[in-house]
Amino acid sequence: MKMDRFQPPKRLLLGPGPSPVDDRVLAAMAEPLLGHLDPLFLRCMDDVQNLLRYVFETENRVTIPISATGSAGMEAALVNVIERGDDVVVCINGVFGQRMRDIVERAGGNAIVVEAEWGRTIDPDKIEAALKSCRPRALALVHAETSTGVLQDLSGLSELAHRHDALLIVDAVTSLGGHPVSVDRNGIDICYSGTQKCLGAPPGLAPITFNERAIELIRARRSKVQSWYLDITLVEHYWGEDRTYHHTAPISMNYALREALRLIQEEGLEARWRRHELNHHALVAGVEAMGLRMAVAEGERLWSLNAISVPEGVDDARVRARLLEEDIEIGGGLGPMKGRIWRVGLMGSGSTRENVNIVVAALHRALNAEGFNCNSGVEAAESIYKTLV
Amino acid sequence: MKMDRFQPPKRLLLGPGPSPVDDRVLAAMAEPLLGHLDPLFLRCMDDVQNLLRYVFETENRVTIPISATGSAGMEAALVNVIERGDDVVVCINGVFGQRMRDIVERAGGNAIVVEAEWGRTIDPDKIEAALKSCRPRALALVHAETSTGVLQDLSGLSELAHRHDALLIVDAVTSLGGHPVSVDRNGIDICYSGTQKCLGAPPGLAPITFNERAIELIRARRSKVQSWYLDITLVEHYWGEDRTYHHTAPISMNYALREALRLIQEEGLEARWRRHELNHHALVAGVEAMGLRMAVAEGERLWSLNAISVPEGVDDARVRARLLEEDIEIGGGLGPMKGRIWRVGLMGSGSTRENVNIVVAALHRALNAEGFNCNSGVEAAESIYKTLV
Repeated sequence: MKMDRFQPPKRLLLGPGPSPVDDRVLAAMAEPLLGHLDPLFLRCMDDVQNLLRYVFETENRVTIPISATGSAGMEAALVNVIERGDDVVVCINGVFGQRMRDIVERAGGNAIVVEAEWGRTIDPDKIEAALKSCRPRALALVHAETSTGVLQDLSGLSELAHRHDALLIVDAVTSLGGHPVSVDRNGIDICYSGTQKCLGAPPGLAPITFNERAIELIRARRSKVQSWYLDITLVEHYWGEDRTYHHTAPISMNYALREALRLIQEEGLEARWRRHELNHHALVAGVEAMGLRMAVAEGERLWSLNAISVPEGVDDARVRARLLEEDIEIGGGLGPMKGRIWRVGLMGSGSTRENVNIVVAALHRALNAEGFNCNSGVEAAESIYKTLV
Repeated sequence: MKMDRFQPPKRLLLGPGPSPVDDRVLAAMAEPLLGHLDPLFLRCMDDVQNLLRYVFETENRVTIPISATGSAGMEAALVNVIERGDDVVVCINGVFGQRMRDIVERAGGNAIVVEAEWGRTIDPDKIEAALKSCRPRALALVHAETSTGVLQDLSGLSELAHRHDALLIVDAVTSLGGHPVSVDRNGIDICYSGTQKCLGAPPGLAPITFNERAIELIRARRSKVQSWYLDITLVEHYWGEDRTYHHTAPISMNYALREALRLIQEEGLEARWRRHELNHHALVAGVEAMGLRMAVAEGERLWSLNAISVPEGVDDARVRARLLEEDIEIGGGLGPMKGRIWRVGLMGSGSTRENVNIVVAALHRALNAEGFNCNSGVEAAESIYKTLV
């Protein structure tokens, strides 16, 4: 079982994540380690918290990275709040809403489900009806549904939730850093994300923020949080002023997150959103000029993750394999979308004019090679930059 | 809130972890990222699983790194097995046994506790009595108690557990890669560790292994595992042949673990244990020549983590601060051991003759500077290498 050094090629990561990681962030990963209670590492932790408040647009004291991937952020958001028998309204229009329901039920909660067709947004009237039908502890929904490419409008949802005494829990895994999430302005009580999408760090941490309303509700629990690892009342003591040992934080991942957030700060949130928006529009123009269709209706599309319908008669997996031969990764569909959509991520440092051109040209080549004749979309994509910039 | 690049100094990490990380492992952290379903990354995952089987000394199919730190390994080991109302015998002689009890109770289990004084091993007769007193689903104990520096002898424990139809769950966070753990030979059913101790990678993953007895018991559960993120029946599908998407694996951390395990393979497990043993003895000789006392009785001591009693009248924290000024980290005590012991880790690439000399000399300087006059221990430490090598 003699093994050589692992030398991964440089792939262009335009799938649903991980997204391309800037060299500055990679260099941070290789910095020498500090102890997890070293005064210098504690300073690094403070910086990460401050930068996360900037990106989440929140004043929340409890704003930290959970020491696990984005999915653990979902679990942390839910299990800290739920006690056995609690009602939780869960919105489902894709894989990640389904996952929320699963986690709610594993925690002993009752999931009251509001559904929409996969690829469509959730109707606020249905949410209101669900909130009225029970005694909801929380309303949980996905801002950016990574499995379908749908963006859920958040406006008005906090008022709706709070009118029914429910917390608003928002999954921003694929939107934070690429779309406005604006935790405080949108009245979100708990919001979480992952490092490997629009934030531009490797996967491994789940940034999360709890406002005081959420923290008070957690403090008033009758039972302990089911997870010791994710119990935010313990975790916050390590990240807060008392610095009580809880677990050993992933040192290098925190270095990387700090550097990735510093890149966001340098660019500015607003400019970063505009960049994601512009490149999304260029991609759509290119794709449509090729005669392909976006799988999500205009106005409901994510800028960060673009779902393209696989044309009739084209083999999804073969096209992706052709792209991978050119070291370009795009994603396939999940669940009922398997074989029906491609998911093209333009996230973080991956959202560039150059990458739009590369992926549009590569898709064109691959489709023609597969016998699906179509025009090039590159000029149409380019025209967007000339019109909109 | 303008922030500069974070440039951590090179500390000599001789605390309870993270331990020093080899430059080859740091370089692996900075390799370009692959997608988490990229065929090349799947190959990397296979390598990690094979290398983990080597280090755990097991044939277990389900042998993977949990995508979170060592403490999440503990939670994964316990919550996969426990259903509400289950009895679990938990051995407590330090912080990590206490944590096991907490996790058992949060999962709705009944913890039947076997205690020993902190700094002493658990008496197998007491374990047997506890197993007889209930209907145990598992016997859970810590092989290497990081909070006190005590090594628990594992021989005979699996027969004891299995005679009472209980699984044997062993925490090997501070022993795997530094002490023999020998999962199959010791009949351990579930064993977990962390990457940042004797394995020599940064913190962020929790290697874990389940044998078929454990997996069958988990498959026969009446209820779902409370944690979606840690549910091994889901996680194993991602790491197994079907490669079903579960969560996005921390790519770079897996690169690092692969390289750290490759270093272990190159050295050989047996040679690595001997190295940890030898350096431990040298440290003890040095410390005792200085007139200090080890906090743990001979024969019950870890080689990887050395607990030294803080002499009467000496301020623990001031001594550690003096060492940190020289960029040497050692640990203080936890809980009731706070202020009473120093914890000196000689783990992974940190377990060297050079580091023993450095820390013995630095302790000597710091103690004298604090007004505790003592002899140098360096010669005594060196004499061990001359006798034993």
